[in-house]
Amino acid sequence: MKRYRNGEIWDFEHEVAVASNRQVILGLDGGTTSTVCICMPIMPFSDTLPDPLPVLARAVAGCSNHNSVGETAARETLEQVMADALSKSGSNRSAVRAVCLAVSGVNHPTDEQRILTWLRDIFPSHVKLYVRNDAVAALASGTMGKLHGCVLIAGTGTIAYGFTEDGREARAAGAGPVLGDWGSGYGIAALALTAVIRAHDGRGPHTMLESTILQTLGLSSADELIGKFIFSSLTVSETSQKWFGSVTKWTYADPSWARIAALVPVVVSCAEAGDEVANKILKEAVQELALSVKAVVQRLGLCGEDEKNSFPLVMVGGVLEANQRWDIGREVMDFISKDYPGALPIRPKVEPAVGAALLAWNDLMKECLQEAYRS
Amino acid sequence: MKRYRNGEIWDFEHEVAVASNRQVILGLDGGTTSTVCICMPIMPFSDTLPDPLPVLARAVAGCSNHNSVGETAARETLEQVMADALSKSGSNRSAVRAVCLAVSGVNHPTDEQRILTWLRDIFPSHVKLYVRNDAVAALASGTMGKLHGCVLIAGTGTIAYGFTEDGREARAAGAGPVLGDWGSGYGIAALALTAVIRAHDGRGPHTMLESTILQTLGLSSADELIGKFIFSSLTVSETSQKWFGSVTKWTYADPSWARIAALVPVVVSCAEAGDEVANKILKEAVQELALSVKAVVQRLGLCGEDEKNSFPLVMVGGVLEANQRWDIGREVMDFISKDYPGALPIRPKVEPAVGAALLAWNDLMKECLQEAYRS
Repeated sequence: MKRYRNGEIWDFEHEVAVASNRQVILGLDGGTTSTVCICMPIMPFSDTLPDPLPVLARAVAGCSNHNSVGETAARETLEQVMADALSKSGSNRSAVRAVCLAVSGVNHPTDEQRILTWLRDIFPSHVKLYVRNDAVAALASGTMGKLHGCVLIAGTGTIAYGFTEDGREARAAGAGPVLGDWGSGYGIAALALTAVIRAHDGRGPHTMLESTILQTLGLSSADELIGKFIFSSLTVSETSQKWFGSVTKWTYADPSWARIAALVPVVVSCAEAGDEVANKILKEAVQELALSVKAVVQRLGLCGEDEKNSFPLVMVGGVLEANQRWDIGREVMDFISKDYPGALPIRPKVEPAVGAALLAWNDLMKECLQEAYRS
Repeated sequence: MKRYRNGEIWDFEHEVAVASNRQVILGLDGGTTSTVCICMPIMPFSDTLPDPLPVLARAVAGCSNHNSVGETAARETLEQVMADALSKSGSNRSAVRAVCLAVSGVNHPTDEQRILTWLRDIFPSHVKLYVRNDAVAALASGTMGKLHGCVLIAGTGTIAYGFTEDGREARAAGAGPVLGDWGSGYGIAALALTAVIRAHDGRGPHTMLESTILQTLGLSSADELIGKFIFSSLTVSETSQKWFGSVTKWTYADPSWARIAALVPVVVSCAEAGDEVANKILKEAVQELALSVKAVVQRLGLCGEDEKNSFPLVMVGGVLEANQRWDIGREVMDFISKDYPGALPIRPKVEPAVGAALLAWNDLMKECLQEAYRS
């Protein structure tokens, strides 16, 4: 992506001939691999949204990872992707009514406040600004902007996030790999790798996962999985092993969780071929994922007192989308339905950045209606 | 530690008046937090070793972590600690008969070869050089240099390593935190942290661990444990959370496994106070640790055909040494004894660097005897 020098990001605004007085909303989904910004027009009040949704422009920027590109570049990437979306849609900042930036890790009002302060520097004061956790945008991408129900995300990581119609919220899991996100793609794959090591050193039963995973990774022995962090109470190996070179070891060679999570399809194929160990790993993952949803539903009382009320259950992420014979998403849904027959599964048809835009639109409409009632 | 410029490390050799023609052995235990070198005199042939062992000098250097200090400095640290030990003992390199460098992560002949090549540059060609996995030095620290039996190390990480008298070897676990070292200090503490999160978000039962761990860490809520790597299929939070500052989160703030493992005593105290969750975590850890030993014993046939042969079982590491009412080491031993009544528990009285020196001494004696027989 072309990088503008500071201050030049918004230069296009002097050149663009703004088509009309059409007002727009920006929805952003900010991640490490890519950053997406959607520009939508303000839609008229209505009970049903137009289908397809009128998306004016979609801009994608690369990594906005502060660790990779530094803080200045990360902020610039987000600012740039908003400018790109506006420029592509033939708009400029004066047309913007609301911005919703959905980023994971927003769990505290302090997180929200820092981002809001920075966004406030870019947009005029009448622009409504919303900063939400990315899980909220995922829920909105399934409910078309309405904050009601529960979303279950199971990709590399996993989180369940829920809202009641009166604005209470709750979450479960989403605590990362160390803290028991056991149904995540990472969790499933890490258990599969562990099963390979345990079969190899005699602690666990033989499993088809051993040959299949080693073949997938192009390794000749389970020893090669063992990383440079082999540690004991006495010494820590990363020093010596890194220092003295040594064979390339797979597991810890690249600490990216996603790289490990990418092994999930291998686990599914072994389970489909009848491997007991792989089947057990997937069954436990299903229970873990269902448990996260149940914890949220229970705490919020989404199912009502008789546990039969209906509520949307938005399901997203690679682990739930695998459309294979061993269908993790369907199994999770079956588990949840037993306790909460009112859970209505939804697979979002739009991406989270659109969910973010719809969140902003929904809130904006509510405020407008309230103002209309007051006046 | 004072750093010498290249080549000056061995300058002391010109100044030291070598006391006698006494020959010495160096034993090294190289780690990330510290590096220990022991200088011992060659002891006479004997069935029993002198008690206490005649240690001429002990030198300690700081971190030899290549990641922290760079490759050149890491090598220099090891070279320096050997020079210090020799200098303190009033010896120089011409007095050295053998060097044993014990470093974890030495799992392949290629690892060994790289280190040997570098050691060969420092010492004259008649000096015997041995490079071993640190677990082997731990075993030798319990068996006084004899490679027979099994060692179980359970500190931050865990590994079981065994040798038969005819030189076969086997290991189990030691694969690091991702690959199922579940009985390690890190494993125990990670499960305790997970239990706190699960109690907090409604996925798990209430546990005393919640208040105790939060109090120990000076945190006000379990939310503060959740780190900056909260991830989903949609976006990865480390970017945004790091970038926008946010509350200090504990778990991922410092990726050191040892920092997490330091919570083991808290888990033990909760278990002693009757907490079910903490008790379950420790009981499972005991089974895991016992399983590692059993896997090694089984593969090597250390227990003989009737499973009653006696063999040394060396137990080291903070997890096994906790001398509390809930004694993990004793429980592990009880578990192992049920299957292998011949397992003889040993708590080493000397440190691994001494174990390394004894390994070198033992091998040296064997070679001398063989030469004596041949001539």
